[in-house]
Amino acid sequence: KMLGKVLCTVLFVGAFPSPAEASQGHISVVLLGATGDLAKKYLWQGLFQLYMDQVSSGHSFTFHGAALAALEPGQRLMFDVLKKLSCPPDEAPNRCAVLKDQFLKLSQYHQLKTAENYTALSREIEALLRQEGLREAGRIFYFSVPPFAYTEIARHINSSCRPPAGAWLRVVLEKPFGHDLQSAQQLATELAGFFREEEMYRVDHYLGKQAVAHILPFRDQNRQFLDPIWNQHHVERVEVVLKETVDAKGRTSFYEQYGVIRDVLQNHLTEALMFLIMELPANVSSAQEVVQHKLQAFQSLWGLERSSAVLGQYQAYDSQVQEELQEARGHVSTTPTFAGVLIHSDSLRWEGVPFLLTSGKALDERVGYARVLFKNRAYCPQSGSLRDAGHSQCKPKQIIFHFGHGALNTPAVLVSRNLFQPVMPKDSWKKAEARSDLHVFGQPLSDFYMYSPVKERDAYSVLISHIYHGRKDFFITTENLLASWAFWTPLLDSTSRQPPRLYPGGVENQHLLDFEMVSGGVAFTLAEPAELLSPSGQTPSDFRAIQSKFRQSPLVSAWAEDLISQLASDMEEAALRSVARSGQFHLALSGGSSPVGLFQRLARHHYGFPWAHTHVWLVDERCVPLTDSESNFLGLHRHLLQRVRVPYFNIHPMPVHLNRRLCVEEDGGAELYARDIAALVANASFDLVLLGVGTDGHTASLFPRSESGLEGAPTVVLTESPVKPHQRMSLSLPLINRARQVFVLVLGKGKHDITTLLSRVGREPRKWPISGVSPSSGQLVWYVDYEALLG
Amino acid sequence: KMLGKVLCTVLFVGAFPSPAEASQGHISVVLLGATGDLAKKYLWQGLFQLYMDQVSSGHSFTFHGAALAALEPGQRLMFDVLKKLSCPPDEAPNRCAVLKDQFLKLSQYHQLKTAENYTALSREIEALLRQEGLREAGRIFYFSVPPFAYTEIARHINSSCRPPAGAWLRVVLEKPFGHDLQSAQQLATELAGFFREEEMYRVDHYLGKQAVAHILPFRDQNRQFLDPIWNQHHVERVEVVLKETVDAKGRTSFYEQYGVIRDVLQNHLTEALMFLIMELPANVSSAQEVVQHKLQAFQSLWGLERSSAVLGQYQAYDSQVQEELQEARGHVSTTPTFAGVLIHSDSLRWEGVPFLLTSGKALDERVGYARVLFKNRAYCPQSGSLRDAGHSQCKPKQIIFHFGHGALNTPAVLVSRNLFQPVMPKDSWKKAEARSDLHVFGQPLSDFYMYSPVKERDAYSVLISHIYHGRKDFFITTENLLASWAFWTPLLDSTSRQPPRLYPGGVENQHLLDFEMVSGGVAFTLAEPAELLSPSGQTPSDFRAIQSKFRQSPLVSAWAEDLISQLASDMEEAALRSVARSGQFHLALSGGSSPVGLFQRLARHHYGFPWAHTHVWLVDERCVPLTDSESNFLGLHRHLLQRVRVPYFNIHPMPVHLNRRLCVEEDGGAELYARDIAALVANASFDLVLLGVGTDGHTASLFPRSESGLEGAPTVVLTESPVKPHQRMSLSLPLINRARQVFVLVLGKGKHDITTLLSRVGREPRKWPISGVSPSSGQLVWYVDYEALLG
Repeated sequence: KMLGKVLCTVLFVGAFPSPAEASQGHISVVLLGATGDLAKKYLWQGLFQLYMDQVSSGHSFTFHGAALAALEPGQRLMFDVLKKLSCPPDEAPNRCAVLKDQFLKLSQYHQLKTAENYTALSREIEALLRQEGLREAGRIFYFSVPPFAYTEIARHINSSCRPPAGAWLRVVLEKPFGHDLQSAQQLATELAGFFREEEMYRVDHYLGKQAVAHILPFRDQNRQFLDPIWNQHHVERVEVVLKETVDAKGRTSFYEQYGVIRDVLQNHLTEALMFLIMELPANVSSAQEVVQHKLQAFQSLWGLERSSAVLGQYQAYDSQVQEELQEARGHVSTTPTFAGVLIHSDSLRWEGVPFLLTSGKALDERVGYARVLFKNRAYCPQSGSLRDAGHSQCKPKQIIFHFGHGALNTPAVLVSRNLFQPVMPKDSWKKAEARSDLHVFGQPLSDFYMYSPVKERDAYSVLISHIYHGRKDFFITTENLLASWAFWTPLLDSTSRQPPRLYPGGVENQHLLDFEMVSGGVAFTLAEPAELLSPSGQTPSDFRAIQSKFRQSPLVSAWAEDLISQLASDMEEAALRSVARSGQFHLALSGGSSPVGLFQRLARHHYGFPWAHTHVWLVDERCVPLTDSESNFLGLHRHLLQRVRVPYFNIHPMPVHLNRRLCVEEDGGAELYARDIAALVANASFDLVLLGVGTDGHTASLFPRSESGLEGAPTVVLTESPVKPHQRMSLSLPLINRARQVFVLVLGKGKHDITTLLSRVGREPRKWPISGVSPSSGQLVWYVDYEALLG
Repeated sequence: KMLGKVLCTVLFVGAFPSPAEASQGHISVVLLGATGDLAKKYLWQGLFQLYMDQVSSGHSFTFHGAALAALEPGQRLMFDVLKKLSCPPDEAPNRCAVLKDQFLKLSQYHQLKTAENYTALSREIEALLRQEGLREAGRIFYFSVPPFAYTEIARHINSSCRPPAGAWLRVVLEKPFGHDLQSAQQLATELAGFFREEEMYRVDHYLGKQAVAHILPFRDQNRQFLDPIWNQHHVERVEVVLKETVDAKGRTSFYEQYGVIRDVLQNHLTEALMFLIMELPANVSSAQEVVQHKLQAFQSLWGLERSSAVLGQYQAYDSQVQEELQEARGHVSTTPTFAGVLIHSDSLRWEGVPFLLTSGKALDERVGYARVLFKNRAYCPQSGSLRDAGHSQCKPKQIIFHFGHGALNTPAVLVSRNLFQPVMPKDSWKKAEARSDLHVFGQPLSDFYMYSPVKERDAYSVLISHIYHGRKDFFITTENLLASWAFWTPLLDSTSRQPPRLYPGGVENQHLLDFEMVSGGVAFTLAEPAELLSPSGQTPSDFRAIQSKFRQSPLVSAWAEDLISQLASDMEEAALRSVARSGQFHLALSGGSSPVGLFQRLARHHYGFPWAHTHVWLVDERCVPLTDSESNFLGLHRHLLQRVRVPYFNIHPMPVHLNRRLCVEEDGGAELYARDIAALVANASFDLVLLGVGTDGHTASLFPRSESGLEGAPTVVLTESPVKPHQRMSLSLPLINRARQVFVLVLGKGKHDITTLLSRVGREPRKWPISGVSPSSGQLVWYVDYEALLG
């Protein structure tokens, strides 16, 4: 009945165009959570803007606010919001008043709780359209509700409120989209049960910010200038930063679950970074090309480790949590409110260029920006004072996408004048006046070409317009979302128990949050001041290397990451010693997953390793082609060999693939490898053999009760594995035992049982091949992490 | 008779110690060129300082000034110099007067012209020693004479003036030591006919400058701080600079022959650079270890190309030359008076770090320094003004070895306070007071720990003391000298005809001499202003790519360097096109010397090359092990593969070494390679084949009248070369002709005849195999340099 009344009014004032005018069809916009904070602050205004912009587009509209509240109070609350809607300053007041009146009449509140409610809404829309003789173009459902409500609502929409065939459905989702990879995957899977990928518009409102949205177009329109310099040879670093002055007060119930990385870095800052570092698609307006390039960029990133981030928490946070969440007085939260993260890419373009993502609450200013700082590639022979005059090439060079606030207090694009004068689209960006009193990043504004938007637009109204136009490139696809969570989750996991550094907030932070890149990661520059130490007395690092004995041999034990860093150092030392002694280092490496972290560490942190004099041999290999993903060599190649400079001749993959067939006895691969070893390795005694241990006590590819390789000659053998691929090639135990040094690496809870067992048994290689490792005149060292050792 | 008189006086005043006191023996110092400029300005004072320092050492001394002038005028000239000798300010005036008096009495002038003169001198020394009952410790001959006189004097010393067995001979040589590699080698060979290596002390007076001499000790004493940061990951650049305000007026007869590179860069700046970049010897006072590490550092440097330097000449130079050398008014000199040179090292430590050497006359200030600028590895979240307070990690970090002059006006070592507080030897270096008004490199002096010498000493007196002590590490060995000339000579050759940029001199130079690193080289930042152009109208670059036809196929021609850069770009374009089309790029490369420059260019300038998707094949191979220096693959590996990221699996050396024997028919290497090609290269059609041409018209390893490979099946063949090593493996002509693109590179005068011939003859592969190259459905392009084309 209500609907009839509204429609009558609407028709009376002529808010609906005639069917002929509305030739593009009708669009129903349903705003779920219509009386919530986000809706109040941004979404209704965005919808009103959409209406103003598109009133003459040939589409007709109705706007349906929805919430759980009953009709009467909900209606009142919603219309209180709508009454406050405003027109942009450049709109004529008369037209504004008319449009606002129409918008109010086209807007209606619904209580949406049960499946019936959704069915009723759908019927109302259909009835209205029949009545007006309008074709349905599509329906937009905007989810401005907490994530726990998503699945329920999605189910109702899918089952009871889909538009008829021929009309589209667009559901708009607001973050958080899960809080780690697993939960995001789960949510994505659930949503995929209700909506097709192209129906979902996941909002990251940063993609609606004008300076963020202009990164790709800028790169595209300035290809001629950027092509030669947008790479590791010219770029010194990339910074993406969001600093806030506010703290989390009043929002701790949300914040305590998420923290700054999930709240800001995983989404906003990551997206801005991707726009900067992805390979530029030929067509930057193709959503598909953009997302493909973005996914490739994610693939190129180094995995984050605990040392990739510094975390902080403003001092008042704990007491705010205690108060707002009714926690006990002694409660200690480890939720970070500040994070600085170092990201590296493996791509040839960006190799070695640090990407620094930083965000925090209770900092000294409110500002967001992405900044590409270029290396100084000039030398200016004039002395200091003369050098800095004009736009000298010796002055800093940078490109800044200024998202907003800060001293500039506007979105802006800034390019150092000694770089180039950028091409900017004249209809949307204008040259800004240089206020000479302002400095950005230590330089007067007059050192830059600066552009600001012709018309400043709120991110939400931009995004709502994109939803209307079906421009999916401004939204986060499922693949994109999962790639981002896959990237961030390991860091979240590894830092979850780490107490953040406490900081007082505002300008008092001084240098307390300054951080530096050190050995592949970051660390705060200043030692933690005693008076700010967390009251719980936890220390920032719980590293402790246990040095003792295991099976009568030296044992090194620590948490996995520290253990690997120790092992890598010990390997470098062994290599240097060996090269000093004999000019060469013969290193035999095992495959599998355990050494991956070790290989990465060696490649990234040990540039002093004498690779040019190192020969790399395989301890064992699976009988698959070298380029097969099961190949030990492929893993070794991907994680180590491709990243360091081992001469081609010094790389010795096992010849498992001769005459285009795998491990055929007659091809004599094992004998060939043994001959190579005999020819190159003095006394067939490797300088270092790195082994692992299987849960069954196997090592190399020597399995319990193996018919060959456990005793006899120091040679290379073909063996059978109980698991696929069954055929293997392996160094024999006697050959391993000729080595000068053998390091055994054991990682993870899964190895706890075999570790415990091995600590008790004697030498029984037929039962547990690893127990037969005992270098006849060399040294054996066990590297066992706490999880394997202590369970 | 003269000698007797002098000796009497000497004995009378007790200048000679008794034989018991002079237990270390007697040293005779002979200064050749005793009345020349250098002797007047520095050397006599240095000898007097030596005497003051060592008068109680147990050695006795006589000083013999020598020149071509007759006794009478020579004696007078010399004693005029000696009378002006002064004591250091910290010497007691009484002692000084006594010592000076003694020194004068021990000094004597000789006319040294003929062999007889040298014999006489030797006899006089012997007679004196006999008379005084002194043992001879050694003789020092200091050559302060023009280089053309070296050989003659050396011959006389060697034949007529050597000390008796048991006493040492030290000859001290002053630069110039040749003016290119060849002349330096010749001079070295001549001198080696007269002196043993350990007898020669080649002076580079920079090695006596206190700040230069302290580079190695500083690195040694601060290992703990420097070890982690003295590498490509932390160092942004290294600058070694000598700026002068004076010009060459009055010295053009010397300068016109040498220019700034030979005068300053080849010796002084190179030596300082070597101290900075060489691997630190375990024992920095071991001359032998130091020179070995220095030679290794030379080996690690990239060869200089024409584009490695920018050259300038102050405007007044030409008229000074015309005046002083009586040249005609139109005379144009291309001698550079300013040079900026970019040097790169290949070592893992320094890869990618630019070393900038700069020196010039008529600049705006007089200063010399070596500066290591570190990367900013910090992020400071506070906004600008707060960030710069105190010793923030975000401020620049640098270590400066300040040789002298400039605003500091003293030798000094400066270390940024946000780096570390250096260890300095307290007896020789003291903390300098921070004069807050002074700025160095844009920072107030208070940002540095600054040290200056406790006692400032002139470089020559330092070096004379080292000669006395036999400290050879402060002098340039023959190997060192030749390594330096070998490094610099290619640049001198390639820039000899290049007109330098003219500059007005002094502060008026403004930004005219600013230069930038661009695509592996350097270039002036500002375009050349028309009014300063050389009056001869020569243009700075005579590059012109001729685009026309050769043997009915496209021809690209230019000077070798430009041709190679064009070829490299064309190859990258072909590669990108191929990868876009098929996901892969199959590239077959030739060996030999011509492509070396190309490989280097590809590795250094084309980081966008899709190496990860490129398969590298060999066009031909010599039947030697892959690690043999004759192997084509080794050259390819050294110059290209080791520097780029081609996956191991994509590298396809020819199997010339199977079953530990070379190219044995039965081992089927050629067939194996053909099978590999068939398996991996679609249609056995390479995307690009790069060929060369021999003077006999051979290409690949297909020689005239070869029995195989010139026709028949598209396959791989064993062939015979007329030159060693005779056995070869090669792609056959029909296989080459299946390629999509074939590029033929022809370089150098030596190829002019065959090029001319080929331009006239038809297709006769049995006579000239290269003439049979004609891709059946692909494209052939000739890259022929001007020398090959035009002779």
